[in-house]
Amino acid sequence: MAKARDAAEKLSKKEYDEQVARIRAELVQLQVKLQESPFKIVLILAGVDGAGRGEAINTLMGWLDPRGVETISVHRTSDNERERPFMWRFWRDLPTKGRMGIFVDSWYTETLREEARSKKALAELDRELRRIRHFERVLSDNGTLVVKVWFHLSKAEQGRRLRVLTSNPDTAWRVTPERLRAHRIYPRLAKTAEHIIAETDRPGARWIRLEAMDPRNRNLTFAQTLLDQFHEHAKRTTARSLKPPQKPQRVIALHPAGRKRLLEMELDKKLSSQGYEAKREKWLGRLNGAIRKAAAAKRSVIFVFEGQDAAGKGGAIRRLSSAIDARDYRVVPIAKPTDEEKAHHYLWRFWRQIPRDGLVTIFDRSWYGRVLVERIEGFCHPNEWKRAYDEINDFEGQLVDHGTIVIKYWLQVSKDEQLVRFRSRENTPYKQHKINAEDWRNRAQWDAYNTAIGDMLALTDSTVAPWHLVAANNKRYARFDVLRHAAKQISAALAD
Amino acid sequence: MAKARDAAEKLSKKEYDEQVARIRAELVQLQVKLQESPFKIVLILAGVDGAGRGEAINTLMGWLDPRGVETISVHRTSDNERERPFMWRFWRDLPTKGRMGIFVDSWYTETLREEARSKKALAELDRELRRIRHFERVLSDNGTLVVKVWFHLSKAEQGRRLRVLTSNPDTAWRVTPERLRAHRIYPRLAKTAEHIIAETDRPGARWIRLEAMDPRNRNLTFAQTLLDQFHEHAKRTTARSLKPPQKPQRVIALHPAGRKRLLEMELDKKLSSQGYEAKREKWLGRLNGAIRKAAAAKRSVIFVFEGQDAAGKGGAIRRLSSAIDARDYRVVPIAKPTDEEKAHHYLWRFWRQIPRDGLVTIFDRSWYGRVLVERIEGFCHPNEWKRAYDEINDFEGQLVDHGTIVIKYWLQVSKDEQLVRFRSRENTPYKQHKINAEDWRNRAQWDAYNTAIGDMLALTDSTVAPWHLVAANNKRYARFDVLRHAAKQISAALAD
Repeated sequence: MAKARDAAEKLSKKEYDEQVARIRAELVQLQVKLQESPFKIVLILAGVDGAGRGEAINTLMGWLDPRGVETISVHRTSDNERERPFMWRFWRDLPTKGRMGIFVDSWYTETLREEARSKKALAELDRELRRIRHFERVLSDNGTLVVKVWFHLSKAEQGRRLRVLTSNPDTAWRVTPERLRAHRIYPRLAKTAEHIIAETDRPGARWIRLEAMDPRNRNLTFAQTLLDQFHEHAKRTTARSLKPPQKPQRVIALHPAGRKRLLEMELDKKLSSQGYEAKREKWLGRLNGAIRKAAAAKRSVIFVFEGQDAAGKGGAIRRLSSAIDARDYRVVPIAKPTDEEKAHHYLWRFWRQIPRDGLVTIFDRSWYGRVLVERIEGFCHPNEWKRAYDEINDFEGQLVDHGTIVIKYWLQVSKDEQLVRFRSRENTPYKQHKINAEDWRNRAQWDAYNTAIGDMLALTDSTVAPWHLVAANNKRYARFDVLRHAAKQISAALAD
Repeated sequence: MAKARDAAEKLSKKEYDEQVARIRAELVQLQVKLQESPFKIVLILAGVDGAGRGEAINTLMGWLDPRGVETISVHRTSDNERERPFMWRFWRDLPTKGRMGIFVDSWYTETLREEARSKKALAELDRELRRIRHFERVLSDNGTLVVKVWFHLSKAEQGRRLRVLTSNPDTAWRVTPERLRAHRIYPRLAKTAEHIIAETDRPGARWIRLEAMDPRNRNLTFAQTLLDQFHEHAKRTTARSLKPPQKPQRVIALHPAGRKRLLEMELDKKLSSQGYEAKREKWLGRLNGAIRKAAAAKRSVIFVFEGQDAAGKGGAIRRLSSAIDARDYRVVPIAKPTDEEKAHHYLWRFWRQIPRDGLVTIFDRSWYGRVLVERIEGFCHPNEWKRAYDEINDFEGQLVDHGTIVIKYWLQVSKDEQLVRFRSRENTPYKQHKINAEDWRNRAQWDAYNTAIGDMLALTDSTVAPWHLVAANNKRYARFDVLRHAAKQISAALAD
């Protein structure tokens, strides 16, 4: 943990006022520059109770132009939040590019409040810290400046402040039982904090320790820390900014085994019309039952539908969703990102759509666009799609850890069958909107896509969220296969 | 209530399939046209239990391109929703321009579920219906197509369907106690529904009754109703589309009394530095206490700060907020609307920012921009800002009804004092970002603004959310006046 510069000395009112004028001018410049910068700032406050984070933040906010800054604090968690993975609320609150999010409460707040002593609690804590490290690396990889400030105060000074507050009837109400307790168990809390800080002090997300003894110096040093970090980050960012390549790169397989698995699929599996009718009702019923059971167990379900253009994703989704009460599911079609979405990490817009416990979300295309179309068309830097496999595995891991059942389908058609369907779309009035120049362009890249799909299958086929490959040359078969698999998969997940 | 066309007959499978092909083609065209249209569609489903709204919506969704459509349904209300005015959740879910929102559940769902029989319940119901009428008028005034479809089913047919479901072990689970009860009290529910429909069947938001006897015909007629309404609306909209005027209009007072009140203010009220120091601490403490009491009573507080450029809104907000725990308030600065905000009704972005119970939101500029800058600069059509007074009064009324304490400040400086501050901003490094060409342009319109401000004061100075005018030539006085007024006002509201 780095130390903030000269935060321990006492500062006179006169010195303070002089410094404030300088700092305010620099903060304004920071904000102007930030608007032109391609990055976001995440500023995290944590520390010893009574060290004055609240005052420091009020002071800083007074110096900043409030446009472009957002403070995030947790009053009470909402059921919306509790019924989703822990990180959901923080993804939601991340600033967009050129903006600053000040986390008065953060992913550290709950963790720091507890004293982990049992072995089980310690294992749980380490798990949480891994998640946090990963999350902060995702942020920093994405170019976000993460500033984490630890407000330090000795036990003696903490006690002195509590006594001062208690002695004045106007302020005695501030001395709550929680604060007295925090004072009593200071050593234990300090030990947990030390551990947490050591485990999360990583390049790109360093902790900075701030001596909070003198309020004036604390406020100034806090602002100065933000300024220092900003300038350093701005320098680094200009030096190695990630621009997508000017033109698409050659697509070379990372994992030829995945491509092989794809190409070896038997695509022409068939189902007769009668066979389908008879079986469909049975499996629709089973799926309906399985989803009701999941809802009763407060488990949510996420379906991911990926596949080539015209592979039949829409039809399969419609059959699947006909088994679910209209109130219990949402279909989320993924198209080009909006401006707001582009100003966030690419996973942000998917985090937003995560269902509450007991509900179903069906993604018609998904986060896998990052390693498919974005990779092939060169919409992102190679480093970005290359680290996406890991980011996606972690994302899906968090969903599953929370209790969500994640089911992923890849619908594969042959190149010939796709051509037949493209032609049919062009010739049917109510299907013409489904075919455009982009589809033909993607088709021309058939082999490159096979490679990218293969890498995706190889690198994101996790045990908790495996891919199910669907032979989709025959629509009936594909729909039935999805239906049956979904019913079985959900039942199996519930039985675990 | 209009009747949907030929919905009562039975339809053979063959007839149905032919019609479906036609309807699907027309729906696709509707969606293409909608994307080019400047309006949004709100489609509301309501009706007798068992009439098949779920199936009808599933079928319609199967025919539509899912991009551009959102279905909204209420699974369980969340604490986020309960702790805000009833309409908050629906404002949040409104579609943007060119999109369609299908409300499987809507502002009618709860209302229709209850049987209002006591006098008090009836009075409450009428109050709700007034709100609904107003809300739908706001939508329709704004150019939104509101389609409300009532799925009708006779008591006999409802009973027959329940018996069919009960007799099959695979479907018996669908016959819940709630549904049996709904069947038992059919006449009472029908009577309430009749009343609700009659009271909310208004131009721009008509109910359409759909006979849901034959499922095929029901599905077709439902889609056809949407198509008919769309085409009618598209015709009307092109005929009388509201374009903002090409150049700013002359600003003529609607209520000269308001302007007079503004001009008669004594702006030079002063406070000495010592007087301020002494009093400030006292009133900060009182305000802190009042806000803690409000939080304990689960009352939220909304502050609105309006005033000329450089009137000192920022400084007043900082002093005020220093009395509040950083976790309990948010400052929302209002700048130019984003693209997403522009695609909604102008009140949408303020609804979004409404605090949960027990919290404080401070608006640095607000929804009053509609009747100030937007009126003067001609950013909206005169009809739009003229009806905004009424829309704003209703909005604030809903907040207050919910228990929110709404406090509005107008900070007024003299033209001379503004000039002094503009010059000072130009000459102080950390203030230069606060002054730009727009500020000088607004200043040139001083008189026009006085007229618009006067009208605003006259037309939105409601008893539940009155304006407090602050003489702001002296910053200390203005800050103190706000502080003291806020503390008193909150205490008074809590004592009510």
